[in-house]
Amino acid sequence: MKVLITGFDPFGGEKINPAWEAVKKLDDNIAGAKIIKKQIPTVFKKSIDILEKTIEDEKPDIAICVGQAGGRYNITVERVAINIDDARIEDNENNQPIDEPIYEDGENAYFSNLPIKAMVKEMRENNIPASVSNTAGTFVCNHIMYGLLYLINKKYSNIRGGFIHVPFIPEQVIEKKNAPSMALDDIAKGLHFAIKAAVENEEDIQMTEGKIC
Amino acid sequence: MKVLITGFDPFGGEKINPAWEAVKKLDDNIAGAKIIKKQIPTVFKKSIDILEKTIEDEKPDIAICVGQAGGRYNITVERVAINIDDARIEDNENNQPIDEPIYEDGENAYFSNLPIKAMVKEMRENNIPASVSNTAGTFVCNHIMYGLLYLINKKYSNIRGGFIHVPFIPEQVIEKKNAPSMALDDIAKGLHFAIKAAVENEEDIQMTEGKIC
Amino acid sequence: MKVLITGFDPFGGEKINPAWEAVKKLDDNIAGAKIIKKQIPTVFKKSIDILEKTIEDEKPDIAICVGQAGGRYNITVERVAINIDDARIEDNENNQPIDEPIYEDGENAYFSNLPIKAMVKEMRENNIPASVSNTAGTFVCNHIMYGLLYLINKKYSNIRGGFIHVPFIPEQVIEKKNAPSMALDDIAKGLHFAIKAAVENEEDIQMTEGKIC
Amino acid sequence: MKVLITGFDPFGGEKINPAWEAVKKLDDNIAGAKIIKKQIPTVFKKSIDILEKTIEDEKPDIAICVGQAGGRYNITVERVAINIDDARIEDNENNQPIDEPIYEDGENAYFSNLPIKAMVKEMRENNIPASVSNTAGTFVCNHIMYGLLYLINKKYSNIRGGFIHVPFIPEQVIEKKNAPSMALDDIAKGLHFAIKAAVENEEDIQMTEGKIC
Repeated sequence: MKVLITGFDPFGGEKINPAWEAVKKLDDNIAGAKIIKKQIPTVFKKSIDILEKTIEDEKPDIAICVGQAGGRYNITVERVAINIDDARIEDNENNQPIDEPIYEDGENAYFSNLPIKAMVKEMRENNIPASVSNTAGTFVCNHIMYGLLYLINKKYSNIRGGFIHVPFIPEQVIEKKNAPSMALDDIAKGLHFAIKAAVENEEDIQMTEGKIC
Repeated sequence: MKVLITGFDPFGGEKINPAWEAVKKLDDNIAGAKIIKKQIPTVFKKSIDILEKTIEDEKPDIAICVGQAGGRYNITVERVAINIDDARIEDNENNQPIDEPIYEDGENAYFSNLPIKAMVKEMRENNIPASVSNTAGTFVCNHIMYGLLYLINKKYSNIRGGFIHVPFIPEQVIEKKNAPSMALDDIAKGLHFAIKAAVENEEDIQMTEGKIC
Repeated sequence: MKVLITGFDPFGGEKINPAWEAVKKLDDNIAGAKIIKKQIPTVFKKSIDILEKTIEDEKPDIAICVGQAGGRYNITVERVAINIDDARIEDNENNQPIDEPIYEDGENAYFSNLPIKAMVKEMRENNIPASVSNTAGTFVCNHIMYGLLYLINKKYSNIRGGFIHVPFIPEQVIEKKNAPSMALDDIAKGLHFAIKAAVENEEDIQMTEGKIC
Repeated sequence: MKVLITGFDPFGGEKINPAWEAVKKLDDNIAGAKIIKKQIPTVFKKSIDILEKTIEDEKPDIAICVGQAGGRYNITVERVAINIDDARIEDNENNQPIDEPIYEDGENAYFSNLPIKAMVKEMRENNIPASVSNTAGTFVCNHIMYGLLYLINKKYSNIRGGFIHVPFIPEQVIEKKNAPSMALDDIAKGLHFAIKAAVENEEDIQMTEGKIC
């Protein structure tokens, strides 16, 4: 089995992106699956183009994109991506779409077909705080997750895919007040066990993990 | 013009639901529109049944459901509802669905066709903290919002509809530590101006209000 | 009985100070006590000078200073003031002392001799979220509280005095993300009941209200 | 030079105390100083008795007590301890004092005579989030810090002493919602550099690190 895992480059004034830093630290083989790592620019459209080209080249069985969620307390596995770009800040090539659909012929939203609860459970059992999230925002993170699931839906139905958000790492919050962070090693460990659960669970498990709001 | 506005009854151990308390305080006429108020039980399926019956009876031009978002800092206008029930706690009739679709023949998600950003802007200009939210959770709030938009999509295409989440009010947080709240009068004032903007704006405005995650 | 209650003017880029706005709204008589209101500049030393002059003029039985605590969720009655100025920002006359004692001959700290827990209890019983705080910071709020208690300790032993911190009001957090606020009317109501409890309780009550940290 | 560093045992329903876990991981020699480690029970009075006995036995030049601050985002060096016990929960031997002075003949408060800002600066420069705190609460953490500084003031004037609070570690927040944490290795690294700065700085540095409230 082959797993493609991507991480964005830094954006929003940050010098590093913990997503890519953690992806780089992953083993080349997890739970018997070969791990392919790819950095993706934090840019609307171009991010999906590069993702699709990598999928074409590598033909992975599983594709997981990883992004930074500054302000979140733990690693969150995203449940759903929505068909909208609504950028609060400019991306890394100065695009700032407001309320534009990502694909005119796409569905309103796509659910990840990864075993998101099994992934959360596996991280927690290994002492990494994790939860399911029901929004990936409306910036490039949601954009690439939507693009990935659109591509799976339209062309690559044999691939399972989704998105994981990771917190700031400590060096990013030195000058921020009351901002949660997670050690880079713990983020990488969390991703390791999330991938392991994705490889080992074709179907998701039943687990209480909803949100009231 | 006629506006139907609903509020849930109390749930999750709370004695009151600020959503319904605020809806009750609304004027009977806002911006020239007649306001119809309806309490809805915090119960999967039954909430949508009662909503549909009320729509049949009242034939509103606009329908807005309102629910409590304990822990949120301001009034949030929801952008999207997703086709899933995933209950962290039981509803008021002891249902606790986990990862079940709301409608088998529904789309993955529906976007509100209310002018959500105009509603946020109008509230802010009247000194009520407000923002757009990209998740209504996976409990009965998302459930009824999805049900409303499903009904609009399938049967009542002339109706515009959506969902607003409101914070706890002060009396609910007396015993909670570090829980934000908003005065009931301010919540009612916020709903007033949100309705006003919905009545006055057929189309939404362009405004930077996206979320990175 | 006579109660002097002071509120600071705006600082730190804010256009208003909810402390003074709330003080202005107070009744002129609370629980049989005459209420004297005084605005105080957010300036090191000068604030204490004006406070002392007002005490000389008015000869109050109780003196309570009120200040803004941006970021706090509820009204906090301060327990203790410490003998240090350590300013993160400049005051309203561009003073920014760092780690300087307020009075060379003062004690390291003074405890408020107001019935702080009775005040918290009275506010809560009237549905205003409130708690005891163990730090008034190291800016002008702690400075004037320390100054008041120093003066009581050295010269005005018949006066009972202390400090109350109040949250932002909603109009101050329109542009702030995830900042708690409290309606001005609720802040004024809270101060009313805090004063009432101070007037009616010579001695404080026993109540569990400590903080682990 | 000899540094005594203590950590509390678990309390409040937790299975471990990150303070002691981190202290255990410290090197036996930091910046040329010998490090003496001691676990202290989370018990009023007994904690100070054991601390004093250890001081008598070990005759350290520097004494630093470390405790858990669940809910804090970073490592905090405490500035001041106040002469009061006010326990929100029972300690580990079921004591729950409310508003009792720690020492009848003690001052209202004692300031740490450690170089608290140099310690914060050293941690930050090594990528460990840290800040100065102006309250150690009113539970056993403040109690032992006050006891230590009382003893220094009354009997051991050659010792420099203070207190450091550390956040939860990840395994403690798996079941908690929105609770910040810090990796145990990072806490230990932070303590290492805090001790280094304490050893190397007889006098504190001037640095803007005050709190508005």
